[in-house]
Parts: sequence; C-alpha cells; structure tokens
Amino acid sequence: MVRTPSGKLLLFGATGDLSQRMLLPSLYGLDADGLLPPDLAIVATARSGHDDEGFRAFAEAALRKHMPADRCTEDGLKTFLARLRYVPVDASKESDFQALADVVGSTEKGLSIFLSTAPSLFEATIDGLASAGLAGDGVRIGLEKPLGYDMASSREINDAVAAVFPEERIFRIDHYLGKETVQNLLALRFANSLFEPLWKAGGIDHVQITVSETVGLEGRVGFYDGAGAIRDMVQNHMLQLVALVAMEAPAQFDSTSIRDEKVKVLRSLRRIDRTNADKMIVIGQYAAGAVAGGAVPGYADELGKPSDTETFVAIKANIDNWRWKGVPFYLRTGKRLPTRQSEIFIQFKPVPHSIFEARGAVLQPNKLVIRLQPDENVRLLLMSKVPGLDRDGIKLREVPLDIAMPNAFADSHRRIAYERLLLDLVEGDQTLFVRRDEVEAQWEWVDAIRDGWSVNAMKPRPYTAGTWGPSAAIALTERDGVTWHD
Amino acid sequence: MVRTPSGKLLLFGATGDLSQRMLLPSLYGLDADGLLPPDLAIVATARSGHDDEGFRAFAEAALRKHMPADRCTEDGLKTFLARLRYVPVDASKESDFQALADVVGSTEKGLSIFLSTAPSLFEATIDGLASAGLAGDGVRIGLEKPLGYDMASSREINDAVAAVFPEERIFRIDHYLGKETVQNLLALRFANSLFEPLWKAGGIDHVQITVSETVGLEGRVGFYDGAGAIRDMVQNHMLQLVALVAMEAPAQFDSTSIRDEKVKVLRSLRRIDRTNADKMIVIGQYAAGAVAGGAVPGYADELGKPSDTETFVAIKANIDNWRWKGVPFYLRTGKRLPTRQSEIFIQFKPVPHSIFEARGAVLQPNKLVIRLQPDENVRLLLMSKVPGLDRDGIKLREVPLDIAMPNAFADSHRRIAYERLLLDLVEGDQTLFVRRDEVEAQWEWVDAIRDGWSVNAMKPRPYTAGTWGPSAAIALTERDGVTWHD
Repeated sequence: MVRTPSGKLLLFGATGDLSQRMLLPSLYGLDADGLLPPDLAIVATARSGHDDEGFRAFAEAALRKHMPADRCTEDGLKTFLARLRYVPVDASKESDFQALADVVGSTEKGLSIFLSTAPSLFEATIDGLASAGLAGDGVRIGLEKPLGYDMASSREINDAVAAVFPEERIFRIDHYLGKETVQNLLALRFANSLFEPLWKAGGIDHVQITVSETVGLEGRVGFYDGAGAIRDMVQNHMLQLVALVAMEAPAQFDSTSIRDEKVKVLRSLRRIDRTNADKMIVIGQYAAGAVAGGAVPGYADELGKPSDTETFVAIKANIDNWRWKGVPFYLRTGKRLPTRQSEIFIQFKPVPHSIFEARGAVLQPNKLVIRLQPDENVRLLLMSKVPGLDRDGIKLREVPLDIAMPNAFADSHRRIAYERLLLDLVEGDQTLFVRRDEVEAQWEWVDAIRDGWSVNAMKPRPYTAGTWGPSAAIALTERDGVTWHD
Repeated sequence: MVRTPSGKLLLFGATGDLSQRMLLPSLYGLDADGLLPPDLAIVATARSGHDDEGFRAFAEAALRKHMPADRCTEDGLKTFLARLRYVPVDASKESDFQALADVVGSTEKGLSIFLSTAPSLFEATIDGLASAGLAGDGVRIGLEKPLGYDMASSREINDAVAAVFPEERIFRIDHYLGKETVQNLLALRFANSLFEPLWKAGGIDHVQITVSETVGLEGRVGFYDGAGAIRDMVQNHMLQLVALVAMEAPAQFDSTSIRDEKVKVLRSLRRIDRTNADKMIVIGQYAAGAVAGGAVPGYADELGKPSDTETFVAIKANIDNWRWKGVPFYLRTGKRLPTRQSEIFIQFKPVPHSIFEARGAVLQPNKLVIRLQPDENVRLLLMSKVPGLDRDGIKLREVPLDIAMPNAFADSHRRIAYERLLLDLVEGDQTLFVRRDEVEAQWEWVDAIRDGWSVNAMKPRPYTAGTWGPSAAIALTERDGVTWHD
C-alpha cells in the first residue's frame, strides 16, 4: 500500500473533551517520535475565541494534564506547539469557513480533516468546508462517532458527507479498531495455521464478547439517556469485534478486502426483531448498589428522573452463514458492572471423547481470551499434564499461555488507539476505518432489535449496581449450558 | 484402572551400573515420598557375595553418590535400607534360585521382578525363576533393554520369557516412556481440541526427531560397537516417539488401547530396504574433532581398531496410512554431536495464503517443539503482531509459548523416569511398557534397513566430532526443502 501523507491537518472540535484527552496527546506522541510528516501544519478550530497563542497555551495545559510526565519534554512541547494554529469557527457562519480556508491555505499537498464536533453540526460543517474550497481532491475527512442514533439519522449524516466527499476519502472512526490487540486478532487468525481449521462451527462452541464499565452516567447525562447501551457500545464497537472474529479470510490486508469481509458478517447477523426480541435480548438498568466497595446511586437517581433507557444489554446473536451456523455469539455490555473489562472469549468445542475420563481427569475445553481492557493481552488456554506419578488417576490442568501482551513490550511504550488512527488518516490508509455499508448494516440490525423491544413493551430489568446485570442475562446463556466468563 | 500392588520386589542385577544410578535411587525416592506399599520387601540379587548388611552398605554408598544431597536423610535411608535383603545368585546354578525363593518366601501377595542383567543371562534366569516357583500367577517381570540385537535374537528372548510368563505379566522397559514430557504428548494431543484437527497430512508439514549426544564411546566399548546408533537409539526410543506422535486416538488411556494404536503405526512404517536404503538413510562415524571446546579422538581411535559401526544415523521415514501420507518423519541420532538434545519438532503447514505479504510481513509456519533433554519442555511457536504503527509494513514475530516445563514445577521435584516405571511395575500398570508386537515391528523395520545398507555396501561416512553428522544428512532433508532444527 502506498501511503500519501497530507501536508496539513485540520482539527474541528479542538477544544473539546476528546481533543484534550486523546487527539492532542496522540498528535503530540506521534510528533515526539518523529512520526508526523516534518512539515505537517495543524490548524485547530472550535467556537472559542482563542488566537494562536491562546490555543497553544490551552493545548499545552491539556498535554501536561493528560500525557505521562516523562513524555512531556520542553523541546517536544516547543516543536509540537509551533505546528499549531487556531481559527475560531461558528459552523453556521459561512464567512468563518472562508477565514479558516485563508489560514489553511493551499490543499495541494493534501489536507486531512478530523471532525470531532456535535453530530448536529456535521451538515453545516461539511457545507462550510465545501463552500470554502476545503473539500477538494486531496482532502480526507475523519468522522468521530456517534454517526446518528438510528439508520435514518445515520443515512442523513452519511448522505451529507457523501454529497461532498467520496467514500474513499471518508474515514469513520471506531477507536476499538486502533487497539493493538484488535489488530492482532487478524494476525492470530491469518498468520497462523493453528487456529483457522477450528475457527468455525464444529471447532468453536461459542463466542462471548463483554464490554463492562464500572462507571455510571458520569457527565454524559444528555447523550447517554438518549442512546443507551445498545447504541453506545453494541452498534459500533461490539459489532466491529464480532465482524473481526467472524470474517472470512480476506484476500489481502487492505481496506477493500477486509471491509468487504466484515460487512458480509454484519449482513449475516440473524435478525432479532419483534418476533423474538424477548428471547434473544435482556435489557437492564442499574439500581443503587455498591461498586468497588463504595455505595452508588441508581441510574434514575443519577439522571434525576425515571427513564426507560437501558444501561445494560445482553444479546444472543447468531451469524447465518456456512462458517458460523449454530455458534452463538453472546454479547453483553453495561454500566455499573463489577469490573471494567473488554474481552472476546472464544470457547472451542470439547474433544469428541475423553480418553482420560476413566483415569479421573476432567478436561476443560480450549479457550482463547482476547482482552482489550483494562490491559491488552491474548491468552490461550490449553490442557497439559500435571507432572506426577498418576497413581490416583491422571491429573491435567489448564495452562494459560500469553501470546501477546503489547503493554509489556519494553521497546515500545503503550500507544493511544487514536495515535494509530490519526496517523492512518494523515497518511491515507482506510483499513482500520469503518465503511458506510458496515455502519448501515450495524444500524439495520440494532434498529430491528430496538423496535422489537419497543413493540413488545420490554422495559429494562433493574439490577443492583456492582452485579453482572439482571439475572435474566445469566439465564440467557445458562439455558444453552454456557456460563459467562467473568 | 485397578492397581494391584505387589507385596515384594525382586531386583536382578542389583549391583550393576543401572541399579546404582537409577533403580536404587528411584526406589529410595518413591519410598521417601511414601509411594511404595508400606510393607514392600525388596530382595536384591546379583553374583557378588554380599550378605544383607553388605548390600545395604553398598546401596547406601550408591544412594549417597547418585541422589541429590537434600533428598538423602538419615531417617529416609534407615527406613529404605531396612527393606533390603540380598541373595547372591549365579544364574547358572539352580540351587541358587532355590535359596533365593526361600528368602523371597510366599508370592501370594504378589511379586514384581526387575531383570537388569546381561541379555545372555535372561534365559537361564527365567528358567531358574520358573523352577524355583517364582513365576506363578501373581508374579510380574520387568525386562530392561536391550532385548536382542535383531528380530531373531529378540524373538528368542521373548519366547523364553513367554514360555514362563504370559504377556500381561511382562513389562518391557523403554525408559523414554517414563519421561513426563513423553506422557504429556498424549495429554496435549488428546486433551485439547486445538491440535488434533491439524495433526495429520494437510496440517503437518513434517516431523523431526533428534536424539543427539556429545559423548563418544565412554565405557560402552563392548556393547556399542556391536550395536551402533540405529539399534542403540532408533529401534527402541525413537520409534516409540514416532509411534506416540503418529498414533490414532486410542479409545481409552489404557495399556491395550494405547499399545494397539502404537503398534499400528510401527507396522505402517514404509519399508526401507536394499532397494532404497541409499536414498532414505545416511550413516556416519565420528572422526577426531572438538566437542565443547575440547579436542576428542575419532571413534576408531577410541575403539582401538577400525570399525564399520555407525555412530550416527539419519533416516527419512514415512508412515503409509491415511493420516500421514506424504508427511516425512526425519530421524537422526548420533554421538559426538554439538549438543546433547532430545526433541520432537513438529512443523505445521504454512497458511495457504499470506494476506500480509504485500504489507511486508514474513510468516513462519507454526511449530511445536517437545523437548526431552537436557531439559523437559513443550513449546508452541505462533505468529503475533509486533505492537507498532505499521507504517513501514506490518511486523509479525514468532512468539514462543511454553506449555509445560515439568522441571519448573515448584511443588514437585523432578523425578527419574525409572521412578514412574518401577512404580507402575510394582502396581501392575502396563500402559507405559512396550508390548511384544511393538518390539517385533520395530525390529522388522530396523532389520530391513540394516540389511539394505549391508547389501548396498554402505559404509559410515566420516564426520568431524562436534558437527551435526555427515553433510549427506543435511542433504537428506534439504532436498525436500526442510532444514534440521538445531
């Protein structure tokens, strides 16, 4: 793949939370390691009335707050801050975009735009960019989620963007795809001959994907109550993980091949709708309880009013294709759960017959655990003999093998997922970004589920904060003889 | 399996080298851990004219010399030595056996006999035992190799034993089967679903088995020059390893099921004989050279005369059955090689197509390395992504995963292979002993090879001590595109 670095980067929403916590630190980290094009100019914009110096001071404060102290050197800061310029833009004012275009200047050597603004401003911003001549051939646009709240609103945003940018210049971000371990999943599957023969119905018993948070609403009151767990986590991150686990082998490691295979999986998800939502879905909302030893209020108390928003969802998903027929994918995500943990848990089928049973040994099925949070790791669990004379029977034990612990690499400090994604945007590699057809296949599946629970008048079941969701979520897997991996 | 412990153990060759280095220390180790039947009486015998006290002093000296100091406690020695009695026996004298039987007394509660004497004494000893009434229903006999030097001599010994003992009371020892890691091979294969789908032609590219020694003749002049590498190592240990790697899944972990499957493999070894020996076999003899930095003489110099005995053999073996068609098993063993190392190296097929090639990543095929010496270990080699931003291509690396390192178990000191085998003999479990049909299938294959090189007048090719054998042994695999794993 030929990478074509942009000469300029334009950052919308540059004073926002994401920018302070992730984008500026990521850009700084890339710069400190000499990974940004040396003459890359970064133009930041937001509503606030900073001038260049004012924004540099703002950015420095954000970096000092959010970067590890040892990464923030005086030289590094000086170099990085010198790249920054700032233009205040009110998206509703066309004249502001013209002023912005004047500062950005020529886009001949390429421009990458990163849009981290409220979705309500997307259309106006896109229009403004187009009218100011900032949407031409060499311009790429990166879009931060959320891209809509259902298929219709998602299409509206995507249509607005598509009116100005062709798909090959649109970079939809799902930061889970920037994680080392998510990328390593592809290496594990397709760089090893060991797994692939088993990686299908017949070889895999079931898959579990858990994204659990210990936090409650935090400051996201406005957004979260209108979204809920399925749209906040399942629709984007978790379905992307499903797609990566379940995809066929792409012909090449490139954006077209990989996304073609991912979207096939998303389109093969068995529809869950008003006919069966009650059997395949459990939704919950946390009540007062305790997390990490501290008492916490219930969701409605935090919100200040009663709500039907689900803070927990568990889904039994199926993929109707040759490879996955009959293999359940259990998904669950929620707030105020006992631990913060994102992981893909793959349980292989047990051996067809145990030759050790009469010798008293109990076999555990093989498992692969791909952990994204809080630490990144890939662990394979195999059975091995316990050394000994076996007089009372043969003793076998489950041996955990750590295949990849990117955090543990001495020679590479841990990178923020956004570093990878920002660099891929600036250099023009779409492989780890989400294509429109994927987003829409995701919404189609999620919309049907939401319609299903709405029509069936399913209300979130209460669960005590600090537990693994409503008991019905346990029953969802246990009636298949499967236990959630906690 | 019901274990039926013998009340008595009778040790022939009790003053020999094996007894001093292995058998007495093993019995002591079992006793120290409370694993011998509490009232097990041990009667030792050999030609030497010890009385009980004399032999106890002899045994104590051997234990103090060959046991780790921290295992030899005064209490432990006292208890163990009190079990020992000694009777001098000249195998040619029937009266000696009667005296022995008087000391052994009733065999009603079971007697296990361990025969560690020169093969030339086997027949006389068996006859003596029978005539003295020491071969009845409750009596088992353990036979230490070598059991003959070809099919005919092996049959003669086995016939002599079979005239007195039925097969289910004959325990033929191959001490490789007492090794933890060899037993673990069965656990890895049959307690995991991960390996078995690949464990065949189509999944495995080739298998290498290496048993290399750095020593030369040592004190074994008389035996070794009449045997050579193929009979010393291949006929027994290495073919047992081939059988364990290649066997079908037995129905149960018991002596009949496992040995039925092993013998099927041994009988499926493609015949190498006078028509093709020159293509499938390389034999060598070490010339003067250097091992571990010290100059060493050649074999003929050590022996004191010219010899055609092979001190090295490399074989390309094939197993003609459905599972293994087309998968070569490369075997090599020799003396005065660069390192002391026994291992089974299994190379899986490469992935059918690399999606990473255009991104610059080089894939190594997956491998499983089962190491028996100098340390015991099982290591799986997988490909994993190197953390990084992949700007210059995707970097993958081979990750070594240690599945089983029995030496490293804090809660179980390393056991001598003979501990396991002596205990299984005393308790009556034949699973890890070699059945007559296996021995004969091994000899049949080896005899044809030896006939093949003899008829073709193949002479051992010289190799410099401290190298990996004659260059023809390298060529043997390289012409198949395979490199020996050193």
